[in-house]
Amino acid sequence: MVVELVSVGTELLLGNIVNTNTQFLAEQCALLGLSMYHQSVVGDNEERLAEVIRTALGRSDVVILTGGLGPTEDDLTKEVCAQVMGFDLKEDAHTKKRLEEYFKNSIYKNITDNNWKQVMVPEGAIVLDNDNGTAPGLILEKEGKAAVLLPGPPGELIPLFKNQVFPYLKKLQPEVIRSQMVKICGVGESQVEDRLLDLIDQQTNPTIATYAKTGEVHLRVTAHAKSEEEAKRLVKPVVKEIKSRFGDYVYSTKEEESLEMAVVRLLQKHELTVTTAESCTGGLLAGRIVNVPGASDVFREGFITYSNKAKRKYLDVSKSTLKKYGAVSEQTAREMAVGGVFAADCDVCVAVTGIAGPEGGTEDKPVGLVYIATCMKEKVTVKKYQFKGNREKVREMAVVRALDLLRRSILGNY
Amino acid sequence: MVVELVSVGTELLLGNIVNTNTQFLAEQCALLGLSMYHQSVVGDNEERLAEVIRTALGRSDVVILTGGLGPTEDDLTKEVCAQVMGFDLKEDAHTKKRLEEYFKNSIYKNITDNNWKQVMVPEGAIVLDNDNGTAPGLILEKEGKAAVLLPGPPGELIPLFKNQVFPYLKKLQPEVIRSQMVKICGVGESQVEDRLLDLIDQQTNPTIATYAKTGEVHLRVTAHAKSEEEAKRLVKPVVKEIKSRFGDYVYSTKEEESLEMAVVRLLQKHELTVTTAESCTGGLLAGRIVNVPGASDVFREGFITYSNKAKRKYLDVSKSTLKKYGAVSEQTAREMAVGGVFAADCDVCVAVTGIAGPEGGTEDKPVGLVYIATCMKEKVTVKKYQFKGNREKVREMAVVRALDLLRRSILGNY
Repeated sequence: MVVELVSVGTELLLGNIVNTNTQFLAEQCALLGLSMYHQSVVGDNEERLAEVIRTALGRSDVVILTGGLGPTEDDLTKEVCAQVMGFDLKEDAHTKKRLEEYFKNSIYKNITDNNWKQVMVPEGAIVLDNDNGTAPGLILEKEGKAAVLLPGPPGELIPLFKNQVFPYLKKLQPEVIRSQMVKICGVGESQVEDRLLDLIDQQTNPTIATYAKTGEVHLRVTAHAKSEEEAKRLVKPVVKEIKSRFGDYVYSTKEEESLEMAVVRLLQKHELTVTTAESCTGGLLAGRIVNVPGASDVFREGFITYSNKAKRKYLDVSKSTLKKYGAVSEQTAREMAVGGVFAADCDVCVAVTGIAGPEGGTEDKPVGLVYIATCMKEKVTVKKYQFKGNREKVREMAVVRALDLLRRSILGNY
Repeated sequence: MVVELVSVGTELLLGNIVNTNTQFLAEQCALLGLSMYHQSVVGDNEERLAEVIRTALGRSDVVILTGGLGPTEDDLTKEVCAQVMGFDLKEDAHTKKRLEEYFKNSIYKNITDNNWKQVMVPEGAIVLDNDNGTAPGLILEKEGKAAVLLPGPPGELIPLFKNQVFPYLKKLQPEVIRSQMVKICGVGESQVEDRLLDLIDQQTNPTIATYAKTGEVHLRVTAHAKSEEEAKRLVKPVVKEIKSRFGDYVYSTKEEESLEMAVVRLLQKHELTVTTAESCTGGLLAGRIVNVPGASDVFREGFITYSNKAKRKYLDVSKSTLKKYGAVSEQTAREMAVGGVFAADCDVCVAVTGIAGPEGGTEDKPVGLVYIATCMKEKVTVKKYQFKGNREKVREMAVVRALDLLRRSILGNY
């Protein structure tokens, strides 16, 4: 079963809004095990919209159209789709009654004329009542193809989809799909694929998809089968094999678990408290840790010591270290981490000092040079990194590597 | 001149990520005055990708393709596009040298074999050096049509587009387009539109486009004309009118200037130093300030005081205040801001305390309740906010409002 998405709206072509509906719908369709090969966006233009609908219906079984169902003149989706599929529009008594009810309870007392176009429905279409707006959703079926029309506002689209379209599509899909994530940090995308080349080459069912995130690689292993059990049985050995190849570079196999969540979970498990001592990242590292609900179990305070004076004042970095080696050095990173543990009276500290740029680089210490240190149970680990990219990228990479070093320091100590 | 966007990547079809590149590119193309009628997404599949490229080149003058330029086997964009347009691939010595340099400075010592495919370039293509990744951008020109190929990661795509593709597209466009940004913080999108309704209704040239960002609204006033001077002359009075309607809600009229840049510029102008005292934002506010190159002029240290104990230890918030009013209260926010100025010995402090959720809300203090305070020249301002959305959204909104309150506090004191 192949499904395709068509978003209708000139505001998308002008870049006025991000198309989040498409991500939502794509994820839901993947969850249903439907194949999706195309998504497209077209403006509020009759001719081009008709052409896009014709193409989509030609190559896919189900076409989900979003937007262009409202009361205004440039809302054309229903009219054009009905025309392309050969349906006449007819007043729908049920929808008319709902529209009158809607306006009776609304702050707008009068129903403006243009609203009446929303009660016109293609003959024989399935009408999907919209509890959050005036335009109903519609399903048009013809010759084994279906067009699903949904209003554009996410607050209307999402509940309509979940409550009415999801069950409709589920009935069309005979197979079960199951997928599992494997999240890796500390290995580059190309290296990950290199080490999995044999598995990727021979993949049919399950398949392995790789997703590069900043400083991370996510792998999704997906199997389709006749039953949930069979799909699980197909996924399991592949995930196991990947985990054995990457060892503790794998930080999670949970879809919704981010790197910082994995770190906080590990700290919770070992009943450890952590603090952060940040120079170039300026709070972003702590900000990531605090992203995790319940971070207060393990994180109580953090230090943003951007100036040398602050490094001395809060973290007791020695004047002579700063003078002799500089703020961006192995020695300073080490003293920051050790000082952080003492100052915050906690179990582990992760410290970051580096040159984020664009200014401040030298031949010896170029932009992108970052030292990250952890201090835990009197054991100090310092790593030197040379990141590429602009100020933002260097700082983002530093945060990811700091979280990862923290994670490994805990694992290494247990 | 008609431009069209094609995003390549199965991860988009699976809904793993939101397609933010498309919004960025659509906005930039609108800025250039280019017409856009279609956007599409296709997976990492040779046949379908070829078909989509053929269709796009058939109906548009310029096709911008994003994604699928990386080192892995399913990165096919360059190969397929070259084939469709009839170009051979050839090793590019310049790109090869850059790739070797990249890996020399990277933590990954070995260049895995699959990386070498990135040095193969369609013969005669314009190579766009990528400073933030390994895959270069490319422009292929043939028979009055052009394909622009850009890497998918936004951190690579955005600088490549701004520095190299924007000037290229600008040259293709015969009319002069001039636009100016007006960036507003502290007024909602619908309110902005409401107050500009008369201007928006009568717009033809220049046009006013609104873009909603987290906690901000950006307005772009765009005029097209035969000369730079004429376009400028059209834009100027409209920008002036908008500024007069929104007063100091307008924080910048510079395209490149972010809210934190405007804040740092203002602090520099008045020779003020700032510190941050953060609870629920946990470092994100300081992280935004440190985003700005040269932030060290105005920012030296920041406090992340997530626990009550830390609020007392570093910011001298009184035990009785915490007990009587709680950590999320006007009183605590006030004492945090005052304490921050003293502890960091600086001119101004901005403090944030709130309930980011999902846990921790009560009937009196629901999730999303945030107090933000500034202390400057002994004047303390505290504002109460009730934000909507998940933990991430609440924290993001708190950071934006904190930056804005800091900005207004400085303006109010001068």
